[in-house]
Amino acid sequence: MNEIRFFCPATIANVTCGFDVLGLCLDTVGDEMVIRKTDDGKVSITRIEGQELPLQTERNVAGVSAMAMLKALGSSQGFEIEIYKKIKPGSGIGSSAASAAGAVFGINKLLGTPFSATELIPFAMEGEKLASGALHADNVAPALLGGFSLVRSYEPLDVIKLHTPGELFASVIHPQIEVKTADARSVLKHSVPLKKAIQQWGNLGGLVSGLYTENYELISRSLNDGIIEPLRSLLIPKFNQVKQAALDAGALGGGISGSGPSIFALSKGQVTAAKVAEAMAGIYAGAGVDFEVHISGINVEGMRVLS
Amino acid sequence: MNEIRFFCPATIANVTCGFDVLGLCLDTVGDEMVIRKTDDGKVSITRIEGQELPLQTERNVAGVSAMAMLKALGSSQGFEIEIYKKIKPGSGIGSSAASAAGAVFGINKLLGTPFSATELIPFAMEGEKLASGALHADNVAPALLGGFSLVRSYEPLDVIKLHTPGELFASVIHPQIEVKTADARSVLKHSVPLKKAIQQWGNLGGLVSGLYTENYELISRSLNDGIIEPLRSLLIPKFNQVKQAALDAGALGGGISGSGPSIFALSKGQVTAAKVAEAMAGIYAGAGVDFEVHISGINVEGMRVLS
Repeated sequence: MNEIRFFCPATIANVTCGFDVLGLCLDTVGDEMVIRKTDDGKVSITRIEGQELPLQTERNVAGVSAMAMLKALGSSQGFEIEIYKKIKPGSGIGSSAASAAGAVFGINKLLGTPFSATELIPFAMEGEKLASGALHADNVAPALLGGFSLVRSYEPLDVIKLHTPGELFASVIHPQIEVKTADARSVLKHSVPLKKAIQQWGNLGGLVSGLYTENYELISRSLNDGIIEPLRSLLIPKFNQVKQAALDAGALGGGISGSGPSIFALSKGQVTAAKVAEAMAGIYAGAGVDFEVHISGINVEGMRVLS
Repeated sequence: MNEIRFFCPATIANVTCGFDVLGLCLDTVGDEMVIRKTDDGKVSITRIEGQELPLQTERNVAGVSAMAMLKALGSSQGFEIEIYKKIKPGSGIGSSAASAAGAVFGINKLLGTPFSATELIPFAMEGEKLASGALHADNVAPALLGGFSLVRSYEPLDVIKLHTPGELFASVIHPQIEVKTADARSVLKHSVPLKKAIQQWGNLGGLVSGLYTENYELISRSLNDGIIEPLRSLLIPKFNQVKQAALDAGALGGGISGSGPSIFALSKGQVTAAKVAEAMAGIYAGAGVDFEVHISGINVEGMRVLS
């Protein structure tokens, strides 16, 4: 195999009570990439469509991730990478992660799968570091593994794929405003009240239990974030109204996707997820804020080979 | 049925990364209680063997819990309660919880089970409040439900019974020293670094996942507490040596049981749990500290009717 074309899914990180540890993979939102072997011993980004992003390998998250992986393998094989971007950078649904994870997924396939999906995560994290300055895994892990990924620990890296209930759907709305990652970080506090931390880990325990037992009511009761959301939601116009509209329309819960500005909701069933998306959209439409809406199942597979 | 005799299990609260939310039920350690109906319309503690504890109904955790339950039912049925204590008060393995939960379990049975086990929890919490001053559920919940109990939320109360892997065993060592609950509380800090809180909820998520998937290695990796244990372990002599001896003997992990002074370890298999108990005992034996040791499976049933 000398060429591979595949779908690179968008992802939701910081799933409500799972700040910095829990991400999920979307099914209907994502980029496409084409990677082919070359004889020149170089990693080249030969084409990016849909967005203005750097073509220089060292400045592109896909290029950086690919090089980290090839360095670990000691491989001098050359590759050219084409990226067809559909996920908007800065939307909060893992645009850079899709490209970083995509690069290592595709090259791994072309080289005969020397690495497991889990082993690819650290290479893709190098791309994330270029994008955000931090080695975070909660987007690249679900992009590579599919489903819900729990980053139990960073030192050492320990990522666990959780069970995904079959009827869970996500509604995502992306208001066309910019929330700088630096701003989203600066509003956080370095310490949290112990009482709130206990509530948060109680909720995360409940959410993980609800995922394994497919208990949608428990998932719903557990989708609370008393620590991050109250601070970051101030950066997103109409956040509370959008979230309330989602709940009123039948969503199990939701929150800020990644560091925003996208807002997501989880629902039982696609019909409810569509109603929820419509209700969320209604708030921004009424307020004159431009937006994009996605409705998606949870993608338990991750990257998907197209040809 | 006019009389019931039953086993009231000891419990481990604050299971490592699950401070204030996660408890488990022991199988071979516990009290016995006998409760019988009377015609005098009163709740009386007629006998306590094994410990010096108050016989006055209002000053006894079993009495207080029983009265809370009967008040909620609007029942004027009388009961006499006998308690055969084997769990030492102040040991950190749910001595008061066994009596509080036992009283409401037994009376509920004698009245034809008007309440589910989960519905009994708030009444038993009234007994816990008498014992410790706080309405906590992480001992009474596993005593009533069996297995691992997650207290997802207190307001409203939401307790979830988690899956228990079949080969999990506990080793518990109780050094014969007193740790006052007030001291155990006063060493805690009101706020925690966000970074440590994130690690804690990552570990709790990993532990819950490990319980459902019976992944003992994941359970082991998740049994870390970077918040409470470093503070409270200072109150327990030789804590670090005891814990290290347990790990060296093959334990998956462990920590402080409740607010101490008991120390527990979890292991895969009874043979390893016995070796772990022996290793823990070796530390206290060598240091001249009196101690008691228990080896127990996880009791997935909770209270057990004997006759």
